[in-house]
Amino acid sequence: MQIVITGGAGFLGVRLARTLLAQGQMSLAGAPATPITQMTLVDRATPPADLMADTRVRALTGDLNDLLEHKEDGASVVTKDTALVFHLAAAVSGECEADFDLGMRSNFAATLALLGACRALKTQPMVVFASSLAVFGDSPEQPTPAVIEDNTLPTPQSSYGIQKLIGEQLTADYGRKGFIKGRNVRLMTVSVRPGTPNGAASSFFSGMIREPLAGIKAPCPVPPNTPVALSSPARTIQGLICAAQASDLAWGPRTALNLPAISTTTGDMAAALERVAGPAATALIDWTPDTAIMNIVKTWPAAINSVRARGLGLLPEENFEAIIREYIRENPDAIKLPIKPQ
Amino acid sequence: MQIVITGGAGFLGVRLARTLLAQGQMSLAGAPATPITQMTLVDRATPPADLMADTRVRALTGDLNDLLEHKEDGASVVTKDTALVFHLAAAVSGECEADFDLGMRSNFAATLALLGACRALKTQPMVVFASSLAVFGDSPEQPTPAVIEDNTLPTPQSSYGIQKLIGEQLTADYGRKGFIKGRNVRLMTVSVRPGTPNGAASSFFSGMIREPLAGIKAPCPVPPNTPVALSSPARTIQGLICAAQASDLAWGPRTALNLPAISTTTGDMAAALERVAGPAATALIDWTPDTAIMNIVKTWPAAINSVRARGLGLLPEENFEAIIREYIRENPDAIKLPIKPQ
Repeated sequence: MQIVITGGAGFLGVRLARTLLAQGQMSLAGAPATPITQMTLVDRATPPADLMADTRVRALTGDLNDLLEHKEDGASVVTKDTALVFHLAAAVSGECEADFDLGMRSNFAATLALLGACRALKTQPMVVFASSLAVFGDSPEQPTPAVIEDNTLPTPQSSYGIQKLIGEQLTADYGRKGFIKGRNVRLMTVSVRPGTPNGAASSFFSGMIREPLAGIKAPCPVPPNTPVALSSPARTIQGLICAAQASDLAWGPRTALNLPAISTTTGDMAAALERVAGPAATALIDWTPDTAIMNIVKTWPAAINSVRARGLGLLPEENFEAIIREYIRENPDAIKLPIKPQ
Repeated sequence: MQIVITGGAGFLGVRLARTLLAQGQMSLAGAPATPITQMTLVDRATPPADLMADTRVRALTGDLNDLLEHKEDGASVVTKDTALVFHLAAAVSGECEADFDLGMRSNFAATLALLGACRALKTQPMVVFASSLAVFGDSPEQPTPAVIEDNTLPTPQSSYGIQKLIGEQLTADYGRKGFIKGRNVRLMTVSVRPGTPNGAASSFFSGMIREPLAGIKAPCPVPPNTPVALSSPARTIQGLICAAQASDLAWGPRTALNLPAISTTTGDMAAALERVAGPAATALIDWTPDTAIMNIVKTWPAAINSVRARGLGLLPEENFEAIIREYIRENPDAIKLPIKPQ
């Protein structure tokens, strides 16, 4: 089986690639698993060395739109042998709000072009579209319900959320028409992401844990009572793989599936950090508010009742402390403060 | 005030133009009314003679995409003096299901290009986007609720419905960003439309009344127990004008507003026709089923609870017989059978 991951050098893309390459085989839509023979990682950046050293990995480096538009200049993003595409590449929420045209190109036009390329193959590859809880947005004219259910009406309050919702609709219709097999899955805010901050308005939800554990000061630009729905990197990857593996019957409708999340607050996240790494860690959190980020984050829902996901065996983590300890186990080199035992 | 109507030579466009030109002035978003000085009717077809004879009317004839793409070749669709755009132009549901690319071009690309042209003006014109109840679609995996509420999740089961839902999202975000003033309004199936059948899967909902009244045989390709939500031409035009006139506060959220509709069945429509024009009329209805049309129509909702519309003074008609009699009053030349008094 040949698999393509757009955004394949990004944090989630790399983790997904490593997970799939380690399992070595993959089942699609309830069919028996077959060996993974090739994995194409499409990204502006080069994937890390361990992936580049895997003989199954093919790296396609460049802008996704450019690669799709000028495929005669080089290798195609998707080919007739592509069985599965994870479309993770996207400009992040903060970027899209600051630069509308960038978001329309990176999230909207690129998704349309990728779906078009898959359709042109006439081989009906599966496309897993990574949407986002940012399709839900609270506004004074239309408050978001306290708890998001599987059938809650999305009312995006950011260009990123609009573009993700449009991507869902395109994926659904290309699937309904039989041009592809389409699966829409809405990712929650992921924390704790390793590495460095990115342009996402949600970036601080990882930074406020990751940086203090490394002995570095980090901003939390929203008040401690700010509610948030979070998922760990591991559960997020599990959700993406499940989207490709589930049978049509188990997966259900073309409407995007909300992945599970735990509901917490930035204050409770800091308290969990203190239980794990003491006040030396929480002293490194800078609570100076940032209105631009607050205005985006406050529109996102903070409680998700993912009945459909539970039916697929996708469950939220136990609590945020467990997520912090998972991050510490997985990233021992990034930890500079002493850690308290569990 | 200068107004643009795309699809301005179509049935709804012509009726909207006549209504606005007759009232002579227009209020936008709660502001005081000002005289209508120019009305641009954009369409592939030429508007009727009465409109062409009005000195305020400017007809732009051609494909909307072409007109928007090659505006250097002729007059612009929108200019800095355009205060209000009604975007009615669309390929209809049956066409879009038969020809995916036609629908993507006519409904999706044209809407995006029109919004882009309005944004480029930097004058924030109001754009009223005519969406459709076809954004709601019933499927075995995700049945539509028995009654559509203002916050019901759209789950389109046709490319037309998907394209309309995407148009709503684009209009909402262009509005939110301040590129335009955006208003989204979902039209119900309109009956009785005068004239001739079109490619819409819903075309027969008018034809099964209009043709028998003219003494002509007409198909009803779905069984008599088929439920349907209908609105008259007059109430539909009222809804479009209200979308432009209402103040921001009265209009509410950027989510599309469901116009009101009466709930009836094709059998009850035929019974109303018989009360109006006798069995000579209903004998002209051909009930031969058409699976392709049934498969589209059966996914549409048949009951709409338009609370938000009622708050704006938009009410459904009393019953379908009243709609038939309205059609007869407005189109005396098209009636060939004797009509029973009320």
